[in-house]
Amino acid sequence: MAPKLDDVAKLAQVSKTTVSRVLNKRGYLSQATIDKVYAAIKELDYHPNVVARQLYKNKTNLIGILLPTVANPFFGELTAALEMKLYQQGFKVLIGNSMNDPAKETAYLNELLTKQVDGLVVGTHNQGIKQYEHRDLPIVAIDRIMNQDIPIVESDNYRGGVVATTRLIDQGAQHIIHINGPRELATPARRRRDAYEAVMREHGLTPSTYEIDFNLPEGRKKQLFRQLLIDHPEIEGIFSSNDTDAALIMQLAHELGRKIPDELLLIGYDGTKTVRELLPSLTTIVQPIDDLATTAIQVLNDRMQGITTKKEYILPIKLWQGDTA
Amino acid sequence: MAPKLDDVAKLAQVSKTTVSRVLNKRGYLSQATIDKVYAAIKELDYHPNVVARQLYKNKTNLIGILLPTVANPFFGELTAALEMKLYQQGFKVLIGNSMNDPAKETAYLNELLTKQVDGLVVGTHNQGIKQYEHRDLPIVAIDRIMNQDIPIVESDNYRGGVVATTRLIDQGAQHIIHINGPRELATPARRRRDAYEAVMREHGLTPSTYEIDFNLPEGRKKQLFRQLLIDHPEIEGIFSSNDTDAALIMQLAHELGRKIPDELLLIGYDGTKTVRELLPSLTTIVQPIDDLATTAIQVLNDRMQGITTKKEYILPIKLWQGDTA
Repeated sequence: MAPKLDDVAKLAQVSKTTVSRVLNKRGYLSQATIDKVYAAIKELDYHPNVVARQLYKNKTNLIGILLPTVANPFFGELTAALEMKLYQQGFKVLIGNSMNDPAKETAYLNELLTKQVDGLVVGTHNQGIKQYEHRDLPIVAIDRIMNQDIPIVESDNYRGGVVATTRLIDQGAQHIIHINGPRELATPARRRRDAYEAVMREHGLTPSTYEIDFNLPEGRKKQLFRQLLIDHPEIEGIFSSNDTDAALIMQLAHELGRKIPDELLLIGYDGTKTVRELLPSLTTIVQPIDDLATTAIQVLNDRMQGITTKKEYILPIKLWQGDTA
Repeated sequence: MAPKLDDVAKLAQVSKTTVSRVLNKRGYLSQATIDKVYAAIKELDYHPNVVARQLYKNKTNLIGILLPTVANPFFGELTAALEMKLYQQGFKVLIGNSMNDPAKETAYLNELLTKQVDGLVVGTHNQGIKQYEHRDLPIVAIDRIMNQDIPIVESDNYRGGVVATTRLIDQGAQHIIHINGPRELATPARRRRDAYEAVMREHGLTPSTYEIDFNLPEGRKKQLFRQLLIDHPEIEGIFSSNDTDAALIMQLAHELGRKIPDELLLIGYDGTKTVRELLPSLTTIVQPIDDLATTAIQVLNDRMQGITTKKEYILPIKLWQGDTA
């Protein structure tokens, strides 16, 4: 039989109300009383019923993290960084991998509305979910454009596009293509494309962005990229908006006998620790995952306390100099 | 002002008790009553207070997942698979990345004892945490040996070791080393080593296991592996107990001019989707992540319902045939 609040009160020779006050740090209490109660809690190995205490305080100390999937190294590393930092602040983390399921994303948002979580970090790609229209929700978006009321934390996507494109041009490539998701996607990653196109034009070169649905099965993607390389032997440089696609292109170039970097220059994007360990030869733009997590939590804390935040936080990127460009 | 249970009762013209019964699916209720209550809920956009309902039912519908870190592709993909399947059963997932912090692992276990989660999936490496001694907790371990009362779900590590070692020998290697964690680690992965050593001896070859702390910083690991390759030019085959180390060896072999597979055969372990996409040329043993997740959830469901389970569930591995062996 698990010990109850009652047992703690009896052993400590105080009232149940006093035990409750000690647990919830409420009202005036002498140090002697606090010590007596904690001594009794320890002796009985008493575990307060957390759900009941949460109801009383109207706080769950849970933060929801809603991302496409932790199976992707970028989101896996981001979630790990968020979890570690939130844990240090006394929060536990509830995850939701929405993938492309707006119903699932909506279900998680309803959790927030029914007060199962105190705040939410969102980085999904689903569109038009009406729950986001509720004002003043403690939500922060990472690398996603939501609505005017939700602050966004992102890395400097435009600068990343400039650095990548400039490097390809400086190394002598003229026929450079960019691979990115569909333009209508509500993500700041589209700024990488804007930067690529601007830099190309500044150098008198013709930009050519190859749009690809990032949810295509890998086999289909491989077919498309293979055809692209076969049909366009004039391509000298590729700036890919993610490292997975860049890795696929490396593999295809090898199969087709196109030497990297001698005949084809290649730069990826994201630069996770996983990619840098598994494929250190890939030159890529590194997103500051740890700083994104730190900033998102600061912004969320402000929102939870009702403090007004900026609309947008842009963090610097870095270049990982591999051998492919 | 958010609508209350009271408002729903008034609009539906039923008692508060009836609304509560409908919400908790308790007692006899006519379909007409159920329909009236749900119509009122919808009209008022009423969100039941979930924390209060959980207290009533003494269930949280939360499952905790306690793993070293979702930043690692194996645990990231495993967590994604568990989350997806648990979501389909109406559970939400609370994650804890324990890393090497027994204090953090203990804190998560205390959550379970204080009923914040209904069950727990554990795959951490910390030792001697006394909370695991509580009998009959709804816990399942993945790829970790806990204690006699906690069922374990794992892939066929011994078979994986046999397949890898046999392949290296069949391709002509005789001086084959195995890289693994310290033997005292309580993980079934040590069976890969047992299998390697047995197969080597069966073929009249001398096994040589190189023990390495998997938490070493990457730079230090790289130094050690580089020295190993330089000091032992006789090595013809390496069976690495994880793909990250195998990727590091690929890179070092390239730097040192040791041609893979002509001069050095290499096989990794885990074979995550991430590794197969980023580094498809690496031959590796594939753990059945999706099946591990499905089985772990079945076992956990049994434990939560008080059904006796087996002590151990061993699932088949596969070989990914890359170009390195």
